[in-house]
Amino acid sequence: MAQPVLTPQTEDFPRWYQDVVAKAELADNGPVRGTMVIRPYGYAIWERMQADLDRRIKDAGARNAYFPLFIPESYLTREAEHVEGFSPELAVVTHAGGKELEEPVVVRPTSETVIGEFMAKWTQSYSDLPLLLNQWANVVRWELRPRIFLRTSEFLWQEGHTAHATEEDARRYATHIHKDVYATFMREMLAMPVVLGRKTARERFAGATNTLALEAMMRDGKALQMGTSHELGQNFAKVFDISYLSEQGNHELCWTTSWGTSTRMLGGLIMCHGDDDGLRVPPRLAPVQALVMVVKDGEGVLQAAQQVLADLVARGVRAELDARLDTPFGRRVVDAELKGIPIRVEMGPRDLAEGSVTVARRIAGGKSAVQLARVAEAVEGALVDDHEALYAAALAHRDAHTSEATTLEEAAEAARTGWATVPWSTIGPEGEALLAESAVTVRCLTMPDGSVPASESDDGVLAVVGRAY
Amino acid sequence: MAQPVLTPQTEDFPRWYQDVVAKAELADNGPVRGTMVIRPYGYAIWERMQADLDRRIKDAGARNAYFPLFIPESYLTREAEHVEGFSPELAVVTHAGGKELEEPVVVRPTSETVIGEFMAKWTQSYSDLPLLLNQWANVVRWELRPRIFLRTSEFLWQEGHTAHATEEDARRYATHIHKDVYATFMREMLAMPVVLGRKTARERFAGATNTLALEAMMRDGKALQMGTSHELGQNFAKVFDISYLSEQGNHELCWTTSWGTSTRMLGGLIMCHGDDDGLRVPPRLAPVQALVMVVKDGEGVLQAAQQVLADLVARGVRAELDARLDTPFGRRVVDAELKGIPIRVEMGPRDLAEGSVTVARRIAGGKSAVQLARVAEAVEGALVDDHEALYAAALAHRDAHTSEATTLEEAAEAARTGWATVPWSTIGPEGEALLAESAVTVRCLTMPDGSVPASESDDGVLAVVGRAY
Repeated sequence: MAQPVLTPQTEDFPRWYQDVVAKAELADNGPVRGTMVIRPYGYAIWERMQADLDRRIKDAGARNAYFPLFIPESYLTREAEHVEGFSPELAVVTHAGGKELEEPVVVRPTSETVIGEFMAKWTQSYSDLPLLLNQWANVVRWELRPRIFLRTSEFLWQEGHTAHATEEDARRYATHIHKDVYATFMREMLAMPVVLGRKTARERFAGATNTLALEAMMRDGKALQMGTSHELGQNFAKVFDISYLSEQGNHELCWTTSWGTSTRMLGGLIMCHGDDDGLRVPPRLAPVQALVMVVKDGEGVLQAAQQVLADLVARGVRAELDARLDTPFGRRVVDAELKGIPIRVEMGPRDLAEGSVTVARRIAGGKSAVQLARVAEAVEGALVDDHEALYAAALAHRDAHTSEATTLEEAAEAARTGWATVPWSTIGPEGEALLAESAVTVRCLTMPDGSVPASESDDGVLAVVGRAY
Repeated sequence: MAQPVLTPQTEDFPRWYQDVVAKAELADNGPVRGTMVIRPYGYAIWERMQADLDRRIKDAGARNAYFPLFIPESYLTREAEHVEGFSPELAVVTHAGGKELEEPVVVRPTSETVIGEFMAKWTQSYSDLPLLLNQWANVVRWELRPRIFLRTSEFLWQEGHTAHATEEDARRYATHIHKDVYATFMREMLAMPVVLGRKTARERFAGATNTLALEAMMRDGKALQMGTSHELGQNFAKVFDISYLSEQGNHELCWTTSWGTSTRMLGGLIMCHGDDDGLRVPPRLAPVQALVMVVKDGEGVLQAAQQVLADLVARGVRAELDARLDTPFGRRVVDAELKGIPIRVEMGPRDLAEGSVTVARRIAGGKSAVQLARVAEAVEGALVDDHEALYAAALAHRDAHTSEATTLEEAAEAARTGWATVPWSTIGPEGEALLAESAVTVRCLTMPDGSVPASESDDGVLAVVGRAY
């Protein structure tokens, strides 16, 4: 039997992850500890995520802008909780332009403070509200235990920042981003089911009054936070004086929100869908959806392959030709599987003699012979089905690894292999602290019907408990 | 007569620039000296530039990737000329994660060194070549005399980095980017004519063997370098050991190139096309191509305006409605002119009674009455014409402010108000040093027919001489 290309998931999941990131040519470690190089194949997936999410954010009315990388150290110390949340993670520039700086500057760990400063300038009157901003940028949070995509000292993200006239409007917007933008994007593009909930006080963002989170289950049963949307109350508005003149002529403080998703989602995508053969990239994200492979040279094979490629491209399928006959076919298949290319169209002289090709499916699995004239149509249909299949498999896996618990002990036991849902009233902040001692956390609070509780103390609130990345 | 909204260009051009950047809401100064905040309107223009240029770069075969912000200080010192070129501009992180770092890290001023390190890993065999990479990123070069978009301590750019088997292939690619990608993009999207040439040894990029530049003339007669494409010879390949196994089985060093354009192009766009009333944004870039303005309330005006808006959008025109009747119409017009919106469709009860609207053109100038049913068609045509008109005007301005000189003195005199072309053999490195004393530089070397000389010493090489931003 052939040596497996990757460490099997059940043998050592973190090792499998490391292997697949390297062998599918997604990313490398950067020379400075904790930084990463996103390689062209990984970046092409990220670009497609970014383009789609950007469109959804614009549809939600936010406008993109760009704020500086460098923030005066004094800005961060203005909001006490915020600085406490970030100070151990900051990278500080002390020298620039050949001299020591009078005031050190911090490399942004997030832009709440600098954006707060400018929101204060831009919100003069009620007619300026809501002010809806978004930024695509790199941020830096120094990591002692870095892991590519999941926790890197520098990562790429989008951060939305909005100011509203009322608490209600801010809440409505944070919820809209949480549910209609992020969760929908994750379902429709990443083929990932996510649990929507609110964070407990312990897990909340530094400076937020409420953090809405999206939690996904990885193949090893652990949770990954895929994104967050925060209500910041008037905390930042007070500190940065983000205020406006109301219709009645009164000076009023704004209510602000912030929300973000990052290259961490790439880590989630890998760990949610990947298997022992490599990645499985959802068709809508895949840089190459179908690889047309010349198995072996022979009468008219290359020409026929080019025709199939043209047919696929004409239907809008992202297709590429692989005619590298100097590389063994088996190795090319292993590589295509590693990279998670959804469909392989394998074409050799023997098939062609019978007027057919072999369509191999990475996601649904299996191979079938398809008549040459029907290949493009078959591929198109398979890509649609594969998205649904991938989502359904992830949901089934999550359901199979989530149990209902009634006690703290049961929840802790379930968290060894997956998640538990348990009444929050049974756990409470003390139970949460106890669980934390064995690295089990309350991922979020949710309602039995999947909706987000308006408050921790609502009747029937469930805690989703598990280990997390 | 009304007070002008902006300082007139002829009175004080730098002040006009500063005014228009602020009043058209393009950008603000950031809190850390030399940094900038790109506001939503400015960023929307940048995004359109970026999307179009990205497509052209991909068509040229390059693939996007992302490399770290932080570079070990030791990387920069490996290539002697390169570090000399950048060391006074570096920002250095000395503290991170709450501790002093063992080795300080530099915030990338450009990524040649770190990308060189990875190219060395990725180019094993001749079949890996050419390796064509591009990155969209922020870079930092500490500026003592910052000016928004033109010279900021942090700016956004794309940097391409490629490795080739032969010098000839590297040269061909650097030239392809220079001429077919950059110059064509500038003509087709920015409506800007550029002179293509090579830099003199004095003006060359640190570490390059040849720098190809694109120079545009601003409305005050000064030059702005809009982009560069460098042949790096084997300088970086030697230092980072970017080598490959040839078909003959020999280890060979690669030949590398790098090429970049940045948010500086936004400054060029403003100063090339703007006038005393504000920006003039080329139609293909304009976030809003046509503004449908309700002049005054009245019988059916708003409904008619919404219909015109729908017609425009249906034809693919980026159109918006301005029905802010609580703001005086005159102020709304001034604002639309400041922002350089190409077309205003002004609709009031009086026009409508006659079945027509007023189409006002920011670029070509003038107003005309257009029948309601023909508005969308008229706007569409005007947008096409306006692109050509803007390009033609910029070219005419450049021609009018460029004179042929035969001596150093004549060239220096011409540089007071524009450019001079003068035989390079007349100037030479010594003449260049002399001119530099009065801040006049050789912008580039070009041939009389507009082609790029293969070497400084070719017969007939002309120096384009002028002052520059």
